[in-house]
Amino acid sequence: MTVKPLFPWDETLKFDHFSITLAPGALSESTPHAAGVIEHVVVISGELDMHIDGAWHTLVADSGVRFAGDKPHAYRNSSGQVAHFHSLIHYPR
Amino acid sequence: MTVKPLFPWDETLKFDHFSITLAPGALSESTPHAAGVIEHVVVISGELDMHIDGAWHTLVADSGVRFAGDKPHAYRNSSGQVAHFHSLIHYPR
Repeated sequence: MTVKPLFPWDETLKFDHFSITLAPGALSESTPHAAGVIEHVVVISGELDMHIDGAWHTLVADSGVRFAGDKPHAYRNSSGQVAHFHSLIHYPR
Repeated sequence: MTVKPLFPWDETLKFDHFSITLAPGALSESTPHAAGVIEHVVVISGELDMHIDGAWHTLVADSGVRFAGDKPHAYRNSSGQVAHFHSLIHYPR
């Protein structure tokens, strides 16, 4: 898993924006963020499985999902290609 | 120019998130948004020129720029390939 900030932490917006790659077969389980965090994941290329609210959802390029980042969630690449996605994390103001 | 919302308007975050393509040679001049708007542009593929604060800046894939969206700005594709980018617009809360 590679994680690159697209922008530095934005104190005004309380906002982080990462560019992330996940290798084929990789699984990343995220510990829940702070209460009230809203996360958006948008797939840039490849396919990504997201585990949210107890179910896996497969996302393709140029589609995304919005979810409560303060609950457990996981990222999985069950494809044979690198999955590239952006993660937007809005913290409560 | 094609514009597709990646997510519906987010009333909690006061946030719009668009996926946009600009054909080779195309220029799009944006009228300023409401006062206090912060815009992020991230290039997904191709190259994009952004006119901000009186100067053109060329952005390549997986790089972006953050700017005050309440001033005039413009998007230009001076390459021979389609430019694909995401535009994130945060309105004041």
